[in-house]
Amino acid sequence: MTEPLFEKLALIGIGLIGSSIALNAKASGLARHVAITTRRKETLAKAEALGLGDSYHLEAAEAVKDADFVILCVPVGVCGAITREIAPHLNAGAIVSDVGSVKAAVIGQMAPHLPQGVQFVPAHPLAGTEHSGPEAGFPELFRNRWCILTPLAETDPEAVERVKAFWEAMGANVEAMTAEHHDLVLAIVSHVPHLIAYNIVGTAADLEEVTQSEVVKFSASGFRDFTRIAASDPTMWRDVFLTNRDAVLEMLARFSEDLASLQRAIRWGDGDALFDLFTRTRAIRRNIIEAGQDTAQPNFGREPGSETKPQG
Amino acid sequence: MTEPLFEKLALIGIGLIGSSIALNAKASGLARHVAITTRRKETLAKAEALGLGDSYHLEAAEAVKDADFVILCVPVGVCGAITREIAPHLNAGAIVSDVGSVKAAVIGQMAPHLPQGVQFVPAHPLAGTEHSGPEAGFPELFRNRWCILTPLAETDPEAVERVKAFWEAMGANVEAMTAEHHDLVLAIVSHVPHLIAYNIVGTAADLEEVTQSEVVKFSASGFRDFTRIAASDPTMWRDVFLTNRDAVLEMLARFSEDLASLQRAIRWGDGDALFDLFTRTRAIRRNIIEAGQDTAQPNFGREPGSETKPQG
Repeated sequence: MTEPLFEKLALIGIGLIGSSIALNAKASGLARHVAITTRRKETLAKAEALGLGDSYHLEAAEAVKDADFVILCVPVGVCGAITREIAPHLNAGAIVSDVGSVKAAVIGQMAPHLPQGVQFVPAHPLAGTEHSGPEAGFPELFRNRWCILTPLAETDPEAVERVKAFWEAMGANVEAMTAEHHDLVLAIVSHVPHLIAYNIVGTAADLEEVTQSEVVKFSASGFRDFTRIAASDPTMWRDVFLTNRDAVLEMLARFSEDLASLQRAIRWGDGDALFDLFTRTRAIRRNIIEAGQDTAQPNFGREPGSETKPQG
Repeated sequence: MTEPLFEKLALIGIGLIGSSIALNAKASGLARHVAITTRRKETLAKAEALGLGDSYHLEAAEAVKDADFVILCVPVGVCGAITREIAPHLNAGAIVSDVGSVKAAVIGQMAPHLPQGVQFVPAHPLAGTEHSGPEAGFPELFRNRWCILTPLAETDPEAVERVKAFWEAMGANVEAMTAEHHDLVLAIVSHVPHLIAYNIVGTAADLEEVTQSEVVKFSASGFRDFTRIAASDPTMWRDVFLTNRDAVLEMLARFSEDLASLQRAIRWGDGDALFDLFTRTRAIRRNIIEAGQDTAQPNFGREPGSETKPQG
């Protein structure tokens, strides 16, 4: 326990990210009071049963009263409407942040509603699992993960420092960049991979010659990894693609060009082109493991017996 | 320890699959003698240092002498040449098998060289990790995985039964189907997923606006899962795409059509189309977990703290 960084933290939305923030903030005493809001009664009841906060509200406007830190933990598509709703009730000097996977569109939707004197520090913790809802959260979710801040030109640097300290206390590494660059980076490291995973799972489900039960049965040969990502929250991901459209379309075009070229190599039997690519990609995996961003265990360590093996 | 199923098992090739078979067969006494062959001196020395077999040979022709079970554990591209080489030295009544990820092409390459009286039972254990080489093997690799047999019309059913018993003793579930159907099923559950993973890792590596260090740093947001698959053995996978060309091109065409349609939905802001697909794909993940083909742990259980969470 340290001295609280904030007196009252209001979390709007209590899914995987919101509940993980709540659990961590409560455990480490980062905020003296954690107020939890969600529009759905059943979800709020779950959050209360899990003891995630100090007060529980169906109205976001009520939860943000006297809060010095407000975080929107909702799909990016509703950030604008919620900001308009809470704006009149925000304390002067309060810091408002979010956890959205898209930054330029979220800023465009939120910033116009925020009153003078409120500090806006958009944030995106790069952490998550394929599970969603308040039961899915756990306090270590952000440990050794990155949290990207995309402050506006007019944001008070002191507010940025406080949000940085908050995420560092959660165990995350913090980096700042422009919203536009964030959206481009995330398009390739997150949005397009998710889209491709969703797409191939859909393609497999629609086959006539291969049954769904065969797809399920034999999935351990590669396919199952894609299904994990394709089990991510549908609302959140729909909003990501609708709001980061340009960057996603740009990266998708590159992906498709490259795939067409691989397809051509297969059709014409160009084994060297395949071998060269397959060798190059191995190096990137090594870099990710060295950077501490994934486990070195084969098959992510999920197979019995594999845990004890040395790294290849 | 049970009564050995075979007197002498000859393993040609001692990579991830060969070494896992060797370790399992030795531990469970499935074969009285395990002979190991590989063409590279250094690899053979490693296999010997690891104590994987009972005898070690640089010449496959020598290892298969008096063997009643011979398994080729090599990339599919060299199966034909090796079969031609060992054919004159095979015992009458010996069973010859393989572990190749492609079946029709492998049968086409191997069958013509095999002498009368030798039983050919092509097999494909659907198991592996992104690591390769004799150090990568572990005896539990096949546990609860599927092994597909694609016997020829002329194969003696008794030989098929013995190979089935062998793989079941390794912990695998065994299913038989035609080579053609195998190649179609594997194209969608394994080959195309691998190609896509290799492709997106290549696309990310080639970007100008996003640096490679950013791609590595922020990979936990989805990309890292693809890099695991894209770290698979380059030679093995080159051969897979060259030898299962038609099925891969067919499945790839479907994947690309579906992706073009998703791309259009993003461009035109069709949120319902995205939401519908993203909901449908979640069900397939659930089926895979229920079928025991993947862990229910979020993020494959690789994150600290996530292990204790209930399933979402």
